Amino acid sequence: MHEDVLTNQPIIRYENGKLVEKKDQYVTEFPLTIMVNGEEFATVICSPNHLEELTLGFLASEGAILKREDLKSIQIDDSKGFAHVELTKSLGERFEYSTKRMIASCCGKSREFYFQNDAAIAKTSMSKIILNPTQVLNMMTRLQSASAVFKQTGGLHNAAISDGDTFFEHRQDIGRHNALDKLYGYCIERHIPVRNKVLIFSGRISSEILIKAAKIGVGVILSKSAPTTLAITLAQDLNITAIGFIRDGNFNIYSHPERIKIAE
Amino acid sequence: MHEDVLTNQPIIRYENGKLVEKKDQYVTEFPLTIMVNGEEFATVICSPNHLEELTLGFLASEGAILKREDLKSIQIDDSKGFAHVELTKSLGERFEYSTKRMIASCCGKSREFYFQNDAAIAKTSMSKIILNPTQVLNMMTRLQSASAVFKQTGGLHNAAISDGDTFFEHRQDIGRHNALDKLYGYCIERHIPVRNKVLIFSGRISSEILIKAAKIGVGVILSKSAPTTLAITLAQDLNITAIGFIRDGNFNIYSHPERIKIAE
Repeated sequence: MHEDVLTNQPIIRYENGKLVEKKDQYVTEFPLTIMVNGEEFATVICSPNHLEELTLGFLASEGAILKREDLKSIQIDDSKGFAHVELTKSLGERFEYSTKRMIASCCGKSREFYFQNDAAIAKTSMSKIILNPTQVLNMMTRLQSASAVFKQTGGLHNAAISDGDTFFEHRQDIGRHNALDKLYGYCIERHIPVRNKVLIFSGRISSEILIKAAKIGVGVILSKSAPTTLAITLAQDLNITAIGFIRDGNFNIYSHPERIKIAE
Repeated sequence: MHEDVLTNQPIIRYENGKLVEKKDQYVTEFPLTIMVNGEEFATVICSPNHLEELTLGFLASEGAILKREDLKSIQIDDSKGFAHVELTKSLGERFEYSTKRMIASCCGKSREFYFQNDAAIAKTSMSKIILNPTQVLNMMTRLQSASAVFKQTGGLHNAAISDGDTFFEHRQDIGRHNALDKLYGYCIERHIPVRNKVLIFSGRISSEILIKAAKIGVGVILSKSAPTTLAITLAQDLNITAIGFIRDGNFNIYSHPERIKIAE
């Protein structure tokens, strides 16, 4: 395996009022494109282990195979991120329009994104926003207070959009994407420009959440948790400042730290 | 709004060695089907509030609208779960094969599942497994020990498959579905029957996870967290025993409690 479930990553940490360079371990997101009988079937974003089992279980879950005997061979090319599958029969009509787009778009879009140039909507951020550490910490505190009011049971995602100052809108949903879509919809409805706004998110920043932030067009995304390594790469490419592990007055900056300035 | 973000649900609780009836609050999953210019565009499983914002933000995220002016009208029919959207233009070619399947399949499949008879793979469970409470508690303890070994950072989903006794396989992935697919693939590869096995899952049981369990064909799913209300309904329909909140020697049974028997 050329990549592990965890990867070391250089970051900038805001700790005790100072910005310092550090290394830390983050969850790897690995795009595996499943080819069936020579044709692209789906791209699954996964942790890079047990890839043969994953391919087999995925095809069975989708109904593309019904039993072990439907499978002639699986060959995993983990350097390029491909699973080449040969079946003993051809795929049915049901798969003509294919799971191809479907999976890629829900479990993370990065391979699609890079390979198929589906990038029209996920824009490189043009945000000019500059924040100081106190604003970063305050926005997360505010998300947590807002969430606490709504929180009566587990399993809900909380998100907010803010300008780092007085503007602050909070939404909650069982779906990560939905919470962000509600905020985006709110801004569109009211013609509120989003470029210099900040997204604050209760969950982990995965590649799909990062791409969502890029589609919305913000320049900064804050999270209480760690991002994945693929999200960090995308954040670097798309000019988005990704900040995580906002806890106890400290936080980590994973990309584009130039938007965070300590007031002189 | 005819439904709230949370719903009351009758459950059976295993507490201090006894099974007792209780009511509790659970997260609602609401399927919203978005119709654009009279045609089905997507079904999004969401928390039932701010549905107009959600529709707008979703369409913008998918690139179906670029600005507020692209929208002629949105009408939310929340009793039936529809958003009727009229645009000032027709959808581009890019949407011909449509996001329709794509979204429904990642954020939960229940409306698709019920309405479009996509049920061929998600079978009603024929499982004959009977478990006692000690087995339920032990399987969760074992998942947590296995997870702790692998856990070095947040953001990974843990899952296992077991017969309640000596057979126990553990997998970990950034994707909820992937962790379950790896276990399913493992069983297919080794011709291990799954009907009388149990899935143990680190996260919340949502409708999509419940349907995944049905596709795999197990009769019991255990979780440390609460299920959603839609997952409970599906578990009842598909003859799956859903158990959650397994903590401190107690747990809740949400459906088909007949598979759990206290040893005389």
